[in-house]
Amino acid sequence: MQEQQQLLAAVAAAPMALGRFPGASLISGPEDEIHRQLQVLQQAYIDDIESGRHTAERVTALRRWMRQQQVDAVVVPLHDAFFGEYVPLANQRLAWLTGFTGSNGMAVVMQEQAVFLSDGRYTLQMRQQVDKAIFELRHITEEPVETWLESHLQAGMVLAYDPWLHNLQQVRRWQKLCDRLGARLHACEENPVDAIWSSRPPMPLSPVQEQPLQWAGRTAVEKVAQVCSQLQQAGASHLLLTQSDSICWLLNVRGMDVPNTPFVLSFLLLAADGTVQWFVDERKLAHYRPEPFVRVRPMDALEAALRELGGEARLAHAPQTCPVHLLEMAEQGGAGLVPMDDPCQLPKAVKHAAELEGMRQAHVIDAVAMCRFLHWFHQLPADSRPTEMELAEQLEAFRRQSPELVSLSFDSISGAGPNGAIVHYRVTGQSNRELQAGELYLIDSGGQYRQGTTDITRTLVLGQPTPEMKARFTLVLKGHILLGSTVFPRGTCGAQLDTLARHALWQAGLDYDHGTGHGVGAFLSVHEGPQSIGKGRSTVPLEPGMVLSNEPGYYKTGAYGIRIENLVEVVERPIADGERDMLGFENLTLVPIETHLIDQQLLGIEEIRWLNRYHARVRETIAPLLEQPVRAWLEQATAPIGECPP
Amino acid sequence: MQEQQQLLAAVAAAPMALGRFPGASLISGPEDEIHRQLQVLQQAYIDDIESGRHTAERVTALRRWMRQQQVDAVVVPLHDAFFGEYVPLANQRLAWLTGFTGSNGMAVVMQEQAVFLSDGRYTLQMRQQVDKAIFELRHITEEPVETWLESHLQAGMVLAYDPWLHNLQQVRRWQKLCDRLGARLHACEENPVDAIWSSRPPMPLSPVQEQPLQWAGRTAVEKVAQVCSQLQQAGASHLLLTQSDSICWLLNVRGMDVPNTPFVLSFLLLAADGTVQWFVDERKLAHYRPEPFVRVRPMDALEAALRELGGEARLAHAPQTCPVHLLEMAEQGGAGLVPMDDPCQLPKAVKHAAELEGMRQAHVIDAVAMCRFLHWFHQLPADSRPTEMELAEQLEAFRRQSPELVSLSFDSISGAGPNGAIVHYRVTGQSNRELQAGELYLIDSGGQYRQGTTDITRTLVLGQPTPEMKARFTLVLKGHILLGSTVFPRGTCGAQLDTLARHALWQAGLDYDHGTGHGVGAFLSVHEGPQSIGKGRSTVPLEPGMVLSNEPGYYKTGAYGIRIENLVEVVERPIADGERDMLGFENLTLVPIETHLIDQQLLGIEEIRWLNRYHARVRETIAPLLEQPVRAWLEQATAPIGECPP
Repeated sequence: MQEQQQLLAAVAAAPMALGRFPGASLISGPEDEIHRQLQVLQQAYIDDIESGRHTAERVTALRRWMRQQQVDAVVVPLHDAFFGEYVPLANQRLAWLTGFTGSNGMAVVMQEQAVFLSDGRYTLQMRQQVDKAIFELRHITEEPVETWLESHLQAGMVLAYDPWLHNLQQVRRWQKLCDRLGARLHACEENPVDAIWSSRPPMPLSPVQEQPLQWAGRTAVEKVAQVCSQLQQAGASHLLLTQSDSICWLLNVRGMDVPNTPFVLSFLLLAADGTVQWFVDERKLAHYRPEPFVRVRPMDALEAALRELGGEARLAHAPQTCPVHLLEMAEQGGAGLVPMDDPCQLPKAVKHAAELEGMRQAHVIDAVAMCRFLHWFHQLPADSRPTEMELAEQLEAFRRQSPELVSLSFDSISGAGPNGAIVHYRVTGQSNRELQAGELYLIDSGGQYRQGTTDITRTLVLGQPTPEMKARFTLVLKGHILLGSTVFPRGTCGAQLDTLARHALWQAGLDYDHGTGHGVGAFLSVHEGPQSIGKGRSTVPLEPGMVLSNEPGYYKTGAYGIRIENLVEVVERPIADGERDMLGFENLTLVPIETHLIDQQLLGIEEIRWLNRYHARVRETIAPLLEQPVRAWLEQATAPIGECPP
Repeated sequence: MQEQQQLLAAVAAAPMALGRFPGASLISGPEDEIHRQLQVLQQAYIDDIESGRHTAERVTALRRWMRQQQVDAVVVPLHDAFFGEYVPLANQRLAWLTGFTGSNGMAVVMQEQAVFLSDGRYTLQMRQQVDKAIFELRHITEEPVETWLESHLQAGMVLAYDPWLHNLQQVRRWQKLCDRLGARLHACEENPVDAIWSSRPPMPLSPVQEQPLQWAGRTAVEKVAQVCSQLQQAGASHLLLTQSDSICWLLNVRGMDVPNTPFVLSFLLLAADGTVQWFVDERKLAHYRPEPFVRVRPMDALEAALRELGGEARLAHAPQTCPVHLLEMAEQGGAGLVPMDDPCQLPKAVKHAAELEGMRQAHVIDAVAMCRFLHWFHQLPADSRPTEMELAEQLEAFRRQSPELVSLSFDSISGAGPNGAIVHYRVTGQSNRELQAGELYLIDSGGQYRQGTTDITRTLVLGQPTPEMKARFTLVLKGHILLGSTVFPRGTCGAQLDTLARHALWQAGLDYDHGTGHGVGAFLSVHEGPQSIGKGRSTVPLEPGMVLSNEPGYYKTGAYGIRIENLVEVVERPIADGERDMLGFENLTLVPIETHLIDQQLLGIEEIRWLNRYHARVRETIAPLLEQPVRAWLEQATAPIGECPP
């Protein structure tokens, strides 16, 4: 334990190197050896946070703090004040307290009881990681936290939360509940976990770099002007930005404060006259000179800045992702609140020609790595039994051959046989499985390149597939092709297109339990809104320049998983003799789809033509960039199938 | 004018015969001659209400009343306190005041200005019917009534509305607006139009008839028990029902208080113990004996009954369709309010086996009439030039040959040539058009039978169609077939299926601007919820036993319209080797689709098979019920097309 403390202290002294991307070219300075050591230290942090071995003592410490503070119940959410997909180690309070490492969860601790809530994806993981002697386990959507509180909070009790970590809607729900029960809701000044976290890691301090105009397309000045015109329309005088992707997009900056996503964690206050206050740790700006209209201020100056807005101000904010604390600061100063959708999200999603060109280039670079990997995989003897980790590491090694790679864009999903059927699978030391002959292998991965972000899934087979595997792979492919090739009128939302990807599976009595497509950033988050393709209610029309994934799948529990994922851009598709303004998709991903997993009997002529045309484009674009024998393999992997004219 | 007054008085004295259905078998008693005279009288009412000739004098009278009442602005909505699709003449206040006969509209009258609002379907009709010297015209969705009020209401002014005619949400919007402007919102005790309507028609008094268990399937007792268990789940002690379709369904009663729909206009208060107070004019009950658990009370006893619920009561209600006045009465008595979806709507939509059997029988009866009409149409010489009215009347005459017909289920849409491209077209004396050789004819119609309700659209051609007409008809047919034949997992909503009906049109750069399917009642409203198929956000999963329309179309402005509509029932579709619980559609409508409008080149083998199978079923079911030469025509009209094995 003492040794661990020393390690933690050592890392705290070298915060510039924090981050999970050992190969990331952004890290300047440390030599290979230092780098390796830092990785070890980093891992110690991770192990400490995620070990779960200390849950009992930590909950005891929290309860002691609660008694001192005269607080009866404390809420511990998973996310931090940035409301992002990835949380830096310093803010992984829920993991530190409970050992839970999933991506959705919440805990409530009281003196005698405690509850841990997560969704259906994590039922098993919750049971494995969270101490059931301390926490009751609950399904967070079927039984929201309010339901548990309803039957545990009593009149006169105090429910405490950190107002940096929750939005207004959440706090209003709790306020209503407390009013009904005669309890009191209390906003903590200090986060309850931080109060007892003796060796909390430092906040990341990755260096900010400019995203050059070559790839950003629009200058920060142009973007600010565009956003300001939206503010004026909404009658707002100021905009508070708390989402890192919005801030990075607006200022054309990138960092590496969190894993897999080139974020600078910061806050931003934009006045409708175009002036910006950027609340960011100045130590990150050693290699970056801010734009003249940007005033850099320390993070802890934000609260005062909001209070000082005053009674004339009308503060626009995205209520879902804005800490209630910041809104209270603004209201204390007299400012009016203007809730609205984050005005950066839609213009960020509709990419500039330069961003699209960067995305295309990133996909060519990524295709080279993917083809090398696929070639390597196809050389494996049927009895070679590679593990999931070895396979993912081999693919990562091929990606790292490109100097353009900054990091992976997410932790690869590397699923052999039955593990491929677990939709949100992440290989761990315990789950790591050998791929057997005759098994399917599902690999979902991507890279962050300066030029853009990639995300691709391919399903492979070691040896010979069964007829059922081929039939179901082909049904998934039919959905992929129908969605990828459809033309649709301007104004259509992703929710309207989702069924096209499922129709072939449905006719066979099959389906898959995830969305079909998500938005993807340009060297930003691999998951971005506001558009998506799914059964849900996304009512955002698709627009030319948006980038989405097209990823239908099929999962046979205990046996195998299939998914075929390409990224596509939305393009105009004028139709001769048509009447409407039509759109369609163009593939960004240029990697062969396994033809020996196809049952050609199940494909129509138009589907075979689509596949042959796609493979011809892959071959023409990627083959010249490949060395032998990978090139020869690609030529054979993209050879036309079927016997129909092109 | 004096003569008209006498006519109106005469009809008022014979209210039992009111209703627009001269052939309806429900009307008992009056001989043919009396019947014809009553029709004349009825028409005089309609002419008076819809003439628009008296707008100036009526608005003047309303303004005089407003000065007396010290009211500055009065809202006049189109619907009445029953919030239904059809409004009885006695409640057609907006039409009486302004002459407007569309199905969506609202007026606000002030001393110096007045505004009339309707939606895009009625832009033209509004201009033709509403006096622009008196009313400014506005688009009700682009510029809601609040926008107009915002710039016309001044501080100190009084805005008056009838609290029987608006829901809570609407009144809250107005209250907010008045608060902001310093104006006062006033709920009128007497409806402002009624106050000046000297010869208002009497309320309809059609006789209530029981819907027999043979067609209803479930007894009123069973239905009440089912609804009561929902009330208990929602923690409600009472349910207020104001929607006529819910009340008629719950009590297994039918009437004919409004056109085209067998409604009894009434209100109902259900206690969670299963006792019912039914607020209905007792004169309607001459031929009907209520169930023992139903206490019949006069309409004007409802307010007191709500006030008397008292402080223990929690009153469930559907907020969208509940007059705010009734909620205020309940609140005055101390009752708590429980807003919820009308708990009759979903069980009403999921039909009982007996209701489905009735729907099937109704469709067989209706198919006989449709086939006679289609046969008659196909005998017309190419130069015969029938008018839209003649065609609709001929079809109605064929329907009336069945003694089972109660009424049409809506005013037929009978569109020749370019009129077929007007989606909400209703033929009038002015628009009535001759069908020319080479033109398409769109006929959308249906019948109300004791057994069930029908709704069918067929597109025909007089003489030879152009290749473009055939191509586009075939694209519509492809959408109709893809939707009609799809299999989908339980839990799927109509919104997810809509794109299947549009996909073929989209690929040709075409689309249509209406929904694809609506729910249909069983001898009730031809439009019912909660399910639908459309681009919208209907999140109600389809369930076996639901009935919907499948009606894609294509409209070429100024040229022609195409629509192919069948009613379908949702059925289970187990798939061998499938994993999910799958559903699909079975056709209720059994009428041939015009094969000589099909371009066979555009159909795939599976589509041709679908059509041939459908036509074989039509032939086998309907041909034995037809006389010659109609039967011979049907056999030829349903002959297989193409050259593929079945």
